[in-house]
Amino acid sequence: MTADTRLNEAEAREQLIDLAADIYDQMNAGDIPSMTIPTRTKSNIEYSEEEDVWVYGDRTSTRSANSVRGARKLLKAVYTVDFLAEQLDQDRSSTLRELYYLSESWDNDEAQFNDQDESNQLVEDLEIVTEVTREDFHMRPEESGAKVMGPLHLREQTNRGDREIHCQLDVGQGGYQIPNNPDTIEFLENDAEFVLCVETGGMRDRLVENGFDEEYDTIIVHLGGQPARATRRLTKRLHDELDLPVVVFTDGDPWSYRIYGSVAYGSIKSAHLSEYLATPEADFIGIQPEDIVEYDLPTDPLADSDINALESELEDPRFQTDYWREQIELQLDIGKKSEQQALASHGLDFVTDTYLPERLEAMGHI
Amino acid sequence: MTADTRLNEAEAREQLIDLAADIYDQMNAGDIPSMTIPTRTKSNIEYSEEEDVWVYGDRTSTRSANSVRGARKLLKAVYTVDFLAEQLDQDRSSTLRELYYLSESWDNDEAQFNDQDESNQLVEDLEIVTEVTREDFHMRPEESGAKVMGPLHLREQTNRGDREIHCQLDVGQGGYQIPNNPDTIEFLENDAEFVLCVETGGMRDRLVENGFDEEYDTIIVHLGGQPARATRRLTKRLHDELDLPVVVFTDGDPWSYRIYGSVAYGSIKSAHLSEYLATPEADFIGIQPEDIVEYDLPTDPLADSDINALESELEDPRFQTDYWREQIELQLDIGKKSEQQALASHGLDFVTDTYLPERLEAMGHI
Repeated sequence: MTADTRLNEAEAREQLIDLAADIYDQMNAGDIPSMTIPTRTKSNIEYSEEEDVWVYGDRTSTRSANSVRGARKLLKAVYTVDFLAEQLDQDRSSTLRELYYLSESWDNDEAQFNDQDESNQLVEDLEIVTEVTREDFHMRPEESGAKVMGPLHLREQTNRGDREIHCQLDVGQGGYQIPNNPDTIEFLENDAEFVLCVETGGMRDRLVENGFDEEYDTIIVHLGGQPARATRRLTKRLHDELDLPVVVFTDGDPWSYRIYGSVAYGSIKSAHLSEYLATPEADFIGIQPEDIVEYDLPTDPLADSDINALESELEDPRFQTDYWREQIELQLDIGKKSEQQALASHGLDFVTDTYLPERLEAMGHI
Repeated sequence: MTADTRLNEAEAREQLIDLAADIYDQMNAGDIPSMTIPTRTKSNIEYSEEEDVWVYGDRTSTRSANSVRGARKLLKAVYTVDFLAEQLDQDRSSTLRELYYLSESWDNDEAQFNDQDESNQLVEDLEIVTEVTREDFHMRPEESGAKVMGPLHLREQTNRGDREIHCQLDVGQGGYQIPNNPDTIEFLENDAEFVLCVETGGMRDRLVENGFDEEYDTIIVHLGGQPARATRRLTKRLHDELDLPVVVFTDGDPWSYRIYGSVAYGSIKSAHLSEYLATPEADFIGIQPEDIVEYDLPTDPLADSDINALESELEDPRFQTDYWREQIELQLDIGKKSEQQALASHGLDFVTDTYLPERLEAMGHI
């Protein structure tokens, strides 16, 4: 196994079949079969002291066959389990979208999905109930991971053999492309001091052109907006397995704080995976609202939607810290936002010569 | 030079300085300086028999200093030329967004850009007037290129030395990441029969998982929706320099036909670059409206916006062929659209075992 939380195909398959067996046992005992899962809403996520991440609370919803609608949901679940078990048996994979279309080939019309939301949700339910991640079911995401540049030598297990790749010496300017399932990666060697996750492609390219990864022994991970699961998973593994600090560098607006939040705390939609995807120790480097003032950055005024998003973050359990309250209140007060590329107003090298070194030093990372 | 149309830094610099010199000469002769560029609208693009691509027609617009607004535009152009010339001198690069922010550091307030649309448009104007591409100015796009998997061995000149990469043997499952400027790539060797450009990540991953690139000696280029300039440029170079047929595989809806159109014919916004970016010999493989019928694919009804887009394509000079008229009229007639991943309704291997081989054979590529 390349990662300690990773299941092999046989184990994932077994968990799925256990679920089908459970439904069978309920019917065999003369009970109306049902499946119980946690309620997935913002009001039902809570902080786990033990894991230091946000997880689902105690509220649950039940899918029971006591109605036609509920029975149909369970039927679909069983057909999906059957498909996934076969897929794992053959060491194949598929996308969520393919699963939706594939259901049209199933012999029972009632088991076919009405729309992709339905099949997506079912796969999430199966993840929660079986405690197996989608990646271990071999369900590939639509969105692929982003790219990595830095002093890291790794081995990726591909379906056409192993590949050993150094993420500076063996890649082009574009870097190493994170595969859909980063648990196929084994870390061989690294000379890195920390991991820098960067929101925009323009800034990622700036850091690479300026050789920031070489000068500061940094693994630069391009997030590409809201990061894909693969990107978050790799970031967590870099932190946990290589013991590297993680800092997140985004634009200075509420949508970007959510990007930081999804790296650090996980998202509401995938709170069942926080342990697998979230890096609670990740630090936010900026653009902070106080940087807008301190570095006199070009700004845009906050739109109404920005103000609403900031106010909603003040209520969000994931942002209940002194640091975030202070920054968000400052931003509401100054009424402005700024982008990471706005640092170019002080010259193209300002970000690598001044801003990042100053911030990293203030945060104790260099 | 790695590509025959590529200028080196010195040549690009000279073209820019010529433009500034031209403005200087006009003023020196006592004339009001001006700059003339083609009008960039759909009504001013026409087919060039010679180049077999769509280019701008004869209508022009003039930016003249005979108004404060016009004079300010020329001032901005001169400051931008100065910045670009210095950038080329230092062998640096920057993004369009950085240029916009950088203008805030210019000593003359009147030369600063009001918004990014203004700086973007100016860079396009400069491309047209100087006949130097943005890439040769070292202006990087925000959107990076997509990725490549196939029997192609290449050398990429990066800012930290040359890298030799085989796009099957030296890359992970994610493939080779196309750099922002693909003219830094030199093709070393290949065993490819053709290039297959694929719209969605899900389908690209399906083809790679099924080993389609190995079985059919195909270079799979992931377009990732509307393709970045880097992706279109690389596709054109694969066609022109390696003499490989190019086929484009997208969803079966009007937005996807535009993706094909931008690969094959160029876009209206960048018709001045058609010669550099467009591959007029590229063929559309599907999803064709007739495939929806023939392969009995799952569909969605056409929305009003789809119908409008199809009708607008019937008017678009780039779609004035019997083939496209027939397909678009058929689609309007059946009132349905279909996605490339809908082929999964016949099983996960249907696309690689049946659909693509049948279509490629019908098109004469295999």
